[in-house]
Amino acid sequence: MAISPLAPAAFPALPEIGGVERRVVCARYKDWARADLSFVTLSPGTQVAGVTTRNVCCSHEVEICREGISGGRARALIVNAGNSNAFTGWRGAQTVSILQGESAAHLDCPVSEIFVSSTGVIGVPLPEDRARAGLHAAFAADPCSWQQLAEAITTTDTFPKGATASAVVGTKTVHISGIAKGSGMIAPDMATMLAYIFTDAAVDAPLLQQMIATANATSFNAITVDGDTSTSDTLLIFATGTAGNAPLSSIDDPGADALYAAIHDVCRQLAHQIVRDGEGAQKFIAISVTGAVHDASAHRVAMAIANSPLVKTAIAGGDANWGRVVMAVGKAGEPADRDRLSIRFGDVMVARDGLPVDGYDEAPVSAHLAGQDVDVAVDLGLGSGRAQVWTCDLTHGYIEINADYRS
Amino acid sequence: MAISPLAPAAFPALPEIGGVERRVVCARYKDWARADLSFVTLSPGTQVAGVTTRNVCCSHEVEICREGISGGRARALIVNAGNSNAFTGWRGAQTVSILQGESAAHLDCPVSEIFVSSTGVIGVPLPEDRARAGLHAAFAADPCSWQQLAEAITTTDTFPKGATASAVVGTKTVHISGIAKGSGMIAPDMATMLAYIFTDAAVDAPLLQQMIATANATSFNAITVDGDTSTSDTLLIFATGTAGNAPLSSIDDPGADALYAAIHDVCRQLAHQIVRDGEGAQKFIAISVTGAVHDASAHRVAMAIANSPLVKTAIAGGDANWGRVVMAVGKAGEPADRDRLSIRFGDVMVARDGLPVDGYDEAPVSAHLAGQDVDVAVDLGLGSGRAQVWTCDLTHGYIEINADYRS
Repeated sequence: MAISPLAPAAFPALPEIGGVERRVVCARYKDWARADLSFVTLSPGTQVAGVTTRNVCCSHEVEICREGISGGRARALIVNAGNSNAFTGWRGAQTVSILQGESAAHLDCPVSEIFVSSTGVIGVPLPEDRARAGLHAAFAADPCSWQQLAEAITTTDTFPKGATASAVVGTKTVHISGIAKGSGMIAPDMATMLAYIFTDAAVDAPLLQQMIATANATSFNAITVDGDTSTSDTLLIFATGTAGNAPLSSIDDPGADALYAAIHDVCRQLAHQIVRDGEGAQKFIAISVTGAVHDASAHRVAMAIANSPLVKTAIAGGDANWGRVVMAVGKAGEPADRDRLSIRFGDVMVARDGLPVDGYDEAPVSAHLAGQDVDVAVDLGLGSGRAQVWTCDLTHGYIEINADYRS
Repeated sequence: MAISPLAPAAFPALPEIGGVERRVVCARYKDWARADLSFVTLSPGTQVAGVTTRNVCCSHEVEICREGISGGRARALIVNAGNSNAFTGWRGAQTVSILQGESAAHLDCPVSEIFVSSTGVIGVPLPEDRARAGLHAAFAADPCSWQQLAEAITTTDTFPKGATASAVVGTKTVHISGIAKGSGMIAPDMATMLAYIFTDAAVDAPLLQQMIATANATSFNAITVDGDTSTSDTLLIFATGTAGNAPLSSIDDPGADALYAAIHDVCRQLAHQIVRDGEGAQKFIAISVTGAVHDASAHRVAMAIANSPLVKTAIAGGDANWGRVVMAVGKAGEPADRDRLSIRFGDVMVARDGLPVDGYDEAPVSAHLAGQDVDVAVDLGLGSGRAQVWTCDLTHGYIEINADYRS
């Protein structure tokens, strides 16, 4: 698979996070030679928080993560790539239990502090022999780079995804390094993906949970590729506390705002990279909705536009077919008034108060749509609710990738 | 555009309906030579009922039809093809008023008895000069066949759509002839389409409304091509009463059940033809959901499966990727239990009680998926709610048609 034309020029330089050790091995979950089992250890006392898919047919791994998050402590993360282990009943669950048990014995910690994710094809139990052999190889492996870890968790991704930010908390500079995978089956609640964020900041699990849930709403939950929601989506954040700042426990503590802003920044960067790797994506599309009756309404209207196959194919074709935007606004099930609607492509207003703008200049609109970054702005003219979401266009590449995924 | 591989062999022979006269002309709404303005007159006293789009940005024509339906009487139907006139403000509305006014004068009837639909590109006002000239030409034109009418209302359709059924009401045989157009922007509430059904039965407008709303729920509202909802969807039924049966006013009247069944049959046939002409469709997919907590829940689960791009691309590729069906069930937002789920492709159960069926035979499944008619059945194992919906696969053809529609 060719690298997405929207990929960043290079994987970013992510700072080391004290207390985090990364190892990857090839467990051969598929018939390939690449690393596909990742094992990340975390220093004792590491705090954890996270958000998981709302798909009611979620995988056993997602249930494991939810339980682990409720405990607030983490010692290790295992990620299997190439097999999601979802919808595999007791057999899939048994293999996950074995991975947890052997890791907990290896690290001398409770089983509940071992987090497991699996990603890939649904409905095929994770093979116990390969998973165990891979895990034992990982125990003995040399540590690897962030980029190697980011590559080992990918499936249909065309590039590894990483992001970093830092913040000053008290007298200490704290660092955040995050990785993510995902390209298809991306939708809100949760965007279909795995994302792991690591920080050396000292922050209590309840505050960490508050921060990640808030950051998620306007990052991973504001992207969509195809409107489909995975059974395995997981976003976890681990705080090792090795930076030595005074532990944060409230958003009102000095430095907590700065830490939150940095976490949000990393989430936003990773979310955008997932869209930029959307299956078949040729264009990165930002959709802004203003003038809604409230923010949640604006978000739903923006998502209706972002998920419309007719809007996404029009933009793929460089076609300023704003009529399809009107259609998507109207089908969102939110308050809207045809005669107050305004629509902008790039910097050009093409429709205002329910009418095409007389004699607007199509040349800059066409030029804007010919580029890789497309902005669509809709004003509903009703209130002050606003939201922004991101998506990609719908192209032949999406069909090619998905019409023959299992074979 | 090549004719859909799923098209019927030929346009059916539709019986004449007493009191209905069809005429079509070329108003040149686009730069083409085909008929694109249809004018159907109905004998005085014709009863009318109908259902229109729930898209809140609906066209002025839809508002006109809603008002007309509330009056219950119709004398004429005008359909413009190639321009939907939606989102064109007062200018679009003015042209429609002119068409209504001149038709009402021509037929010596109230303006409220003139029904107008327009279909095609959004956001360009219907040109008043062409519309008026076309209408006057239609006044003077010779009557045309059902097939010519069905062809004149199409846009991106690859074949004209017609269906018929009959029923015995009292001592009379009544006939129903229906036509429809639609291939993209098809979704529930209303499937994006125009459909017009004509019967010579004598039936009062309120009962006719009850019948068409009920029939719509399990026909046009049970199909989807791309989940998008048009701003112009309209389904109208006209009853001229020329068959001479004792007028029906209650569903309990003798013969009313038979008439309803025939109307439902015509709606179902036309709805299936729209799916068979789905943009880029190579396969006709029937999705059945049983075991839901109630019928409405089953319908929503079935629609989540039918609208999933990942399910639709897998079937396009002949891939029995039932994991994507699980994913779609889980994202529907309806009660479901992963461990009670069973899934069938054709006659073969591939998953039962949340687990792949051990050693099921993939050969008949692959053979079934290689065909043009695909059946997917899901049992949720929770209750007795059931529903069936129809859709098509998502192929390169869909992208080709929609990435360059305006040009």
